Amino acid sequence: MAGRDVTKLEKVVKEIVDDMRHMPDRGMVAAYIPELARVNPKSFGIAVIESDGNTVVGGDADVPFSIQSISKVFTLTLALGKVGNRLWARVGREPSGSPFNSIVQLEREQGIPRNPFINAGAIAVTDVILSSHLPREALGEILRFMQFLADDSSIMIDHEVAASEHRTGFRNAALANYMKSFGILDNPVDFILGVYFHHCAIAMSCRQLALAGRFLAQFGSNPSTGYAVVQPERARRINALMLTCGHYDGSGEFAYRVGLPGKSGVGGGIMAVAPGKASIAVWSPGLDAVGNSQLGQIALERLAKEMGWSIFGA
Amino acid sequence: MAGRDVTKLEKVVKEIVDDMRHMPDRGMVAAYIPELARVNPKSFGIAVIESDGNTVVGGDADVPFSIQSISKVFTLTLALGKVGNRLWARVGREPSGSPFNSIVQLEREQGIPRNPFINAGAIAVTDVILSSHLPREALGEILRFMQFLADDSSIMIDHEVAASEHRTGFRNAALANYMKSFGILDNPVDFILGVYFHHCAIAMSCRQLALAGRFLAQFGSNPSTGYAVVQPERARRINALMLTCGHYDGSGEFAYRVGLPGKSGVGGGIMAVAPGKASIAVWSPGLDAVGNSQLGQIALERLAKEMGWSIFGA
Amino acid sequence: MAGRDVTKLEKVVKEIVDDMRHMPDRGMVAAYIPELARVNPKSFGIAVIESDGNTVVGGDADVPFSIQSISKVFTLTLALGKVGNRLWARVGREPSGSPFNSIVQLEREQGIPRNPFINAGAIAVTDVILSSHLPREALGEILRFMQFLADDSSIMIDHEVAASEHRTGFRNAALANYMKSFGILDNPVDFILGVYFHHCAIAMSCRQLALAGRFLAQFGSNPSTGYAVVQPERARRINALMLTCGHYDGSGEFAYRVGLPGKSGVGGGIMAVAPGKASIAVWSPGLDAVGNSQLGQIALERLAKEMGWSIFGA
Amino acid sequence: MAGRDVTKLEKVVKEIVDDMRHMPDRGMVAAYIPELARVNPKSFGIAVIESDGNTVVGGDADVPFSIQSISKVFTLTLALGKVGNRLWARVGREPSGSPFNSIVQLEREQGIPRNPFINAGAIAVTDVILSSHLPREALGEILRFMQFLADDSSIMIDHEVAASEHRTGFRNAALANYMKSFGILDNPVDFILGVYFHHCAIAMSCRQLALAGRFLAQFGSNPSTGYAVVQPERARRINALMLTCGHYDGSGEFAYRVGLPGKSGVGGGIMAVAPGKASIAVWSPGLDAVGNSQLGQIALERLAKEMGWSIFGA
Repeated sequence: MAGRDVTKLEKVVKEIVDDMRHMPDRGMVAAYIPELARVNPKSFGIAVIESDGNTVVGGDADVPFSIQSISKVFTLTLALGKVGNRLWARVGREPSGSPFNSIVQLEREQGIPRNPFINAGAIAVTDVILSSHLPREALGEILRFMQFLADDSSIMIDHEVAASEHRTGFRNAALANYMKSFGILDNPVDFILGVYFHHCAIAMSCRQLALAGRFLAQFGSNPSTGYAVVQPERARRINALMLTCGHYDGSGEFAYRVGLPGKSGVGGGIMAVAPGKASIAVWSPGLDAVGNSQLGQIALERLAKEMGWSIFGA
Repeated sequence: MAGRDVTKLEKVVKEIVDDMRHMPDRGMVAAYIPELARVNPKSFGIAVIESDGNTVVGGDADVPFSIQSISKVFTLTLALGKVGNRLWARVGREPSGSPFNSIVQLEREQGIPRNPFINAGAIAVTDVILSSHLPREALGEILRFMQFLADDSSIMIDHEVAASEHRTGFRNAALANYMKSFGILDNPVDFILGVYFHHCAIAMSCRQLALAGRFLAQFGSNPSTGYAVVQPERARRINALMLTCGHYDGSGEFAYRVGLPGKSGVGGGIMAVAPGKASIAVWSPGLDAVGNSQLGQIALERLAKEMGWSIFGA
Repeated sequence: MAGRDVTKLEKVVKEIVDDMRHMPDRGMVAAYIPELARVNPKSFGIAVIESDGNTVVGGDADVPFSIQSISKVFTLTLALGKVGNRLWARVGREPSGSPFNSIVQLEREQGIPRNPFINAGAIAVTDVILSSHLPREALGEILRFMQFLADDSSIMIDHEVAASEHRTGFRNAALANYMKSFGILDNPVDFILGVYFHHCAIAMSCRQLALAGRFLAQFGSNPSTGYAVVQPERARRINALMLTCGHYDGSGEFAYRVGLPGKSGVGGGIMAVAPGKASIAVWSPGLDAVGNSQLGQIALERLAKEMGWSIFGA
Repeated sequence: MAGRDVTKLEKVVKEIVDDMRHMPDRGMVAAYIPELARVNPKSFGIAVIESDGNTVVGGDADVPFSIQSISKVFTLTLALGKVGNRLWARVGREPSGSPFNSIVQLEREQGIPRNPFINAGAIAVTDVILSSHLPREALGEILRFMQFLADDSSIMIDHEVAASEHRTGFRNAALANYMKSFGILDNPVDFILGVYFHHCAIAMSCRQLALAGRFLAQFGSNPSTGYAVVQPERARRINALMLTCGHYDGSGEFAYRVGLPGKSGVGGGIMAVAPGKASIAVWSPGLDAVGNSQLGQIALERLAKEMGWSIFGA
């Protein structure tokens, strides 16, 4: 029976890859920094890792891309490991109802970001990881965590992307200074932004991302080692946050169409999990109007439907 | 094996009912109309119906209460049945990031409500059901639908509640007139509000609500009859909307803590579904700060955890 | 010396009328009700009444038009006469920084309109005038006040305009219901809106408006009778409100360019006062983007400049 | 006749100074930086310079204080001198309807500040003065302009205040970065903020401020020299901006009560002008809820009333 399932997954993935090749509307590649703009808009990759370790990949599954906001899932996991539920004193858990970089919400709610996946929230999470470390140390910790989860020490930060983001990241500097004015951040704004821009600039392939996401699909455990990365309840809760807040102001739409917890990045990647079933990563650099990968969403919708993986009923 | 599970469910439900009896902080009963204010704050009821029809109830499971916003799930289902995806031209599918009766969002988004579960969205949905009917006919249709789903023709509208809501519902009148000014509503505002206030005033018990919700837990089918109420995909999508938007500005919190699609009402009821496993209703009239049943949420968190029903990983 | 001044004023008015005839960009006539849309877009009228009673008119100075929001100056005067400074418990005195019909501000400020000249504020002022009267009585009082100030009993309400506004005034119904939900209004919403739409539908000519505005230019006194309409301090304060809030979200611009207290209406009229010097009314139905008469503003800018009437320094 | 007027002014000023000494409610001294907090809350000073140069002072009229936002009138004058009406492409002219440091308005209006007197607007104005200069040069130019206007080369910047503002000015850093993200600012954010914090930290006495403001009361001319600082029309327009926007979200209130164009600062100073009549400065460090000098406003209301100087009718 497992064999039949695997066959079906392979078939579905192959069909998706084939169909994505010919999609006419691929969205717009992010162009606010040259490093992102210069990626091939025709790229499409997918990697699926089932509970038993069975892995099915397709397209550009081994081409590294800038994971951008997907890193926020992992920094959230790290920060929860450090301070536990005290984190929620400075970051909320509600969908924002606004674009990812909105500052209006911060004014209304006294500098407390609505959730850890909007930019302001991820900056506050980064501040927690920094604690009294130097930026270099904090960044090393984040990178080593990613390498550990993906079981791949070759994962690197793209320093050109990070430098370019830092040079032009005035909106994020506004968010950080604004939170700082409310006393939400402990560390110097420049330190926090330095770490933030660098962890968003981590480059990974779909295969590496799917590997890194396994603990969320597997009740907190890393199947390579059998050890718990987090307790099952925490894995569930991170999944819940991804479902309600993981796709900026398109989170409701993603839940409605795909029905899987997931997190997108403006590099065109989406990491998603089918709890108890599979860890998934897709990548296609063209974005829709709210900043989520156009083909990535279509591919995940197809995959979840064909495999009966929606968490809202098979 | 089924026998063991049932036993566990019965045990869990009993413990929950016992514990809820002694909870010191029960929230505040809604008091904006006298009919809601006069309910016994000590009430607590729960009903769980598993896929095989096995039913476990506890506490005041057969006491009818005002379902209020829970009715919005059923009017949404009816409206989708009438106009299908054309509904989404006038109602969005994103969490609102604001209180349930906020009008700010409508100004920013040209009168289009963010989702069908905030008041403005439910008013727009009601307008669709009205189409060219008279209010009395539309209301009859909604009521018969509830009676059909719950297989119980004794379900009634509490006309005193409806009249009281209508007399004091200036905020909803503001929302309706505001949408009307953008051309989002077809029918006269008074007609729409009349139907809206009346369907919110339907009185049901936990047992009746859990019966009515079965089709969402069972891939669109009503197990009493075996017939499809909606297609499986539509059931999934309504569940997704309940998860992201079902608890006003506490939707993220409910997903995080409980991990089940659900819809709450200011009467203190919550209907929830564990897809493929169970349809659930709880009731306790005291509300938390954002308007969701204080004990209802705690009870559902306990139930989902003990039974391993969270959609985000058992 | 008076003779020389008069001569200059006559010359300036004549030049303005001549120049306005040929202005290519006349703005857009309000078209949300047919009664306003059907006015001749080429119309232009002006009337200036100096302190000594000397009157200079030009163009369509005797053609009646719908005074619309200009009526708010007179209802404010009446309401202050009734309840004095207690009025400020339910209406603010600050510019709004938003369009005239914004509801966002009301949500932020608990239903208290920012000033008596935005729609919400004028509705609250109308509620004060109604007090325990019937709509018909309140309306009679407002109309008689206008007739008294202009010394002209022929001033009438255009009931077709009022009926059309009432039929389509959903935005104003939203504002009124919204304030009612905060307890800001005492009377039934329908009564208040009935009076509001009717006083906005008063039809007056430039000459009549300039006559009615004399008490604001003359320290509170009506020069026809010599009697005080209001105390000098109240006249100053109404002038201050007109300067900071009299032109919707173009109030700053009007102060900057014209430098006179004034109030505009979407019928294309503007009433303005040069304190101690003159009462002025202009009319041209085409509006600019924020809803103020395009040519009316240009005419007043010219007039104030040529006559050295700016309150900010001759 | 001039003699009698002077006598009256002297009498009025003396009474105001006497009465202010005993006022029980003096507001709250700004405490966000220690340098401002440590001022004597009992201080009160006033200086009035009439058109003919006649000067009447009272109380602490020669004690220097931090002029803070009052400097924005002078930087606006300088920036208009540099780029003329092109300034208005990046700063609006409308009252903001929000607190002085709101960022919400910037999001709604694409980074364009509503007026040059809210913090964001003054930062944009500072950017214009910087143009391609170094901060030190721009600051020198601003300081020399103040010394020239007040005919007093002893006016200095309080560098401790500036350093303290810079160290804690996260909200202003947020505003600047936010505008920078929309491309509204040309110079590096740090340069702009450096100049901004320093010009706000200029220390002046009431007498010096009243001297500096004479050109606004005198149709653009500096009476010491007879030379035009700006054209009369520009002086009128700066006065109009002060009236509609000069007191943060209390501008409407100030116009209503005082009736003079003016600009306040959180150091407790207010500069005001009675066009054609007098230049005025008052100082009392306690602030009201919106950040304007509590006694300063009362003193100016008294002065304007007793002297018949209101621009809205004597």
